[in-house]
Amino acid sequence: MNLSSSPRVRDLGEQAFLERLQRFCPAEIVGDDAAVLTTEPGQSLVVTTDLLVDRVHFSEGTTSPEDVGWRAAAMNLSDLAAMGASPLGLTVGLGVPGQLSVSWVENVYQGLSACLQQYATPIVGGDVCRSPVITVAIAAFGQVSPQQVIRRSAAQPGDAILVTGVHGASRAGLELLLNPSWGSDLSEVEHRLLIQAHQRPQPRLDVVPKLWQLDKQLRVAGMDSSDGLADAVVQICRASGVGASLERADMPIATPLTKTTFLTPEQALEWALYGGEDFELVLALPPALATSLVQQLGQGAAIIGEMVEGTGVQLVDRTGQYPAITLSLSRGFQHFL
Amino acid sequence: MNLSSSPRVRDLGEQAFLERLQRFCPAEIVGDDAAVLTTEPGQSLVVTTDLLVDRVHFSEGTTSPEDVGWRAAAMNLSDLAAMGASPLGLTVGLGVPGQLSVSWVENVYQGLSACLQQYATPIVGGDVCRSPVITVAIAAFGQVSPQQVIRRSAAQPGDAILVTGVHGASRAGLELLLNPSWGSDLSEVEHRLLIQAHQRPQPRLDVVPKLWQLDKQLRVAGMDSSDGLADAVVQICRASGVGASLERADMPIATPLTKTTFLTPEQALEWALYGGEDFELVLALPPALATSLVQQLGQGAAIIGEMVEGTGVQLVDRTGQYPAITLSLSRGFQHFL
Repeated sequence: MNLSSSPRVRDLGEQAFLERLQRFCPAEIVGDDAAVLTTEPGQSLVVTTDLLVDRVHFSEGTTSPEDVGWRAAAMNLSDLAAMGASPLGLTVGLGVPGQLSVSWVENVYQGLSACLQQYATPIVGGDVCRSPVITVAIAAFGQVSPQQVIRRSAAQPGDAILVTGVHGASRAGLELLLNPSWGSDLSEVEHRLLIQAHQRPQPRLDVVPKLWQLDKQLRVAGMDSSDGLADAVVQICRASGVGASLERADMPIATPLTKTTFLTPEQALEWALYGGEDFELVLALPPALATSLVQQLGQGAAIIGEMVEGTGVQLVDRTGQYPAITLSLSRGFQHFL
Repeated sequence: MNLSSSPRVRDLGEQAFLERLQRFCPAEIVGDDAAVLTTEPGQSLVVTTDLLVDRVHFSEGTTSPEDVGWRAAAMNLSDLAAMGASPLGLTVGLGVPGQLSVSWVENVYQGLSACLQQYATPIVGGDVCRSPVITVAIAAFGQVSPQQVIRRSAAQPGDAILVTGVHGASRAGLELLLNPSWGSDLSEVEHRLLIQAHQRPQPRLDVVPKLWQLDKQLRVAGMDSSDGLADAVVQICRASGVGASLERADMPIATPLTKTTFLTPEQALEWALYGGEDFELVLALPPALATSLVQQLGQGAAIIGEMVEGTGVQLVDRTGQYPAITLSLSRGFQHFL
């Protein structure tokens, strides 16, 4: 974090500081105790929140303030996409040490705005306070037709399991940032794409309208893969009371992970399943519709298995080379371990 | 904070921890990436957020975990009341050290729930993560008819300035908690009421329907007095482009502050004007309606002055004993100083 530039946060009064940050918000929305938003008639409100803490969720070496902002926006928009919602706005609560430079904070807002403006979504308010540790608290609001809410609990045996993109890239990008000599057999372009996957993930809000174009009455279950692909499949199975069978050869491993000699095939698979923070959607829907959606989404989207009767998520190998293994949550992100 | 009881936060996985906290949420709402709420047709959405940090906004000596939760809920509900909105729900983002006891966190939720259930408002989701400092991030959602939004900017010269209750009690309660020998000339009941004002403030959601019962077409400006009574009047004046004249004899000073010999009359006035965290509403509206509203609200509600042409907030003395003084924001809460 940049402590050299001036002014510092403590040099400004709360009022002056808030006024600087309000430049990132629509003018008609700031200046009251709360923001007022208009929702479309007949839509349900969707709300989600995430807290990001310095040295827990990001650190100076791997994440610029712009990236902190981008990632904070992206992870909340991804939660909205996972519910089938379109975004309405986002609030930002920021806890910062007094010696932090004001420009660091402004750069967080810059990153938030850069991610949000792709979806024409405003920052609609917030709170700034002193804290010994940099903390970013986001709440995001969206709307969805009550008939088109995507829940985890709607999967049925026979559903195809679809992922909207490849996995493991964010984990590899983090590795590159922590250890620049890693993956030296990959191209510069591949390095850049992996780092971008970590620093600038894209929430898959684009998937939602494509889904309903297939069939307005579609039954679909789903969530995002922010805590890992395996976690997402396990959570959908638990909520729906079904099991899943995933095909090892169809795992959506990001290509560089399968190319580099810095990972064994098992390690590449592990990063794809448990790496987390890829922010793709994992959906369960009837197979014919899943096939159509994969075609519409193109590159990276794939069917990776099917929902089955019973419980438990099995990773099977149709070639018979590997024994079937059971996937669990336990290797996923567990922030308290 | 209680570190002695078991289990600690770090003894539970994130999943198990979230499951414990989800008992405080309506069953139909938990278990997805985000919560889905139903709004009434034709209503606007109102959103607000606040971040509370250990040793900045609360501390072990003065605030139990239940009080942390209650105050966090109350301050956000107060922001909704200040906009004229009725609450729909609230999300909680919690950052906690691994060594914190799980019961401490559950007690925060207990306090949140106790405050919220007075208004039938659910906790609709949240996030828990590790943080070196206890951090509570709240976002609250409410709804309001677009014609009944209370804004700071709607005051006009000639409006009466109304407060919904007395001020300075929260500041005195804090003093008692920090310094128990303070105010020893006050009764036990008074001590309890002052401490309650600090630990268990009541958001004035009850005022909003009474306001519109007076006149559905009412023009009203307002905000809450969370940052102090003087701050609220100054902010409304700035946003509305008007000045204000407050009458010294009509200042709504909590009675114990005027009785105790531990405060001079000037100190009692200072606490009422700048103490903060009383969470009353400060409204500007036509004088006849203000008089009716004061009658409806009863004890503590008062007209304290009027809006005037020009700028600046003057505290005047109709007896001529004190010279007029200008009130500013600068003695209000400035968390970065």
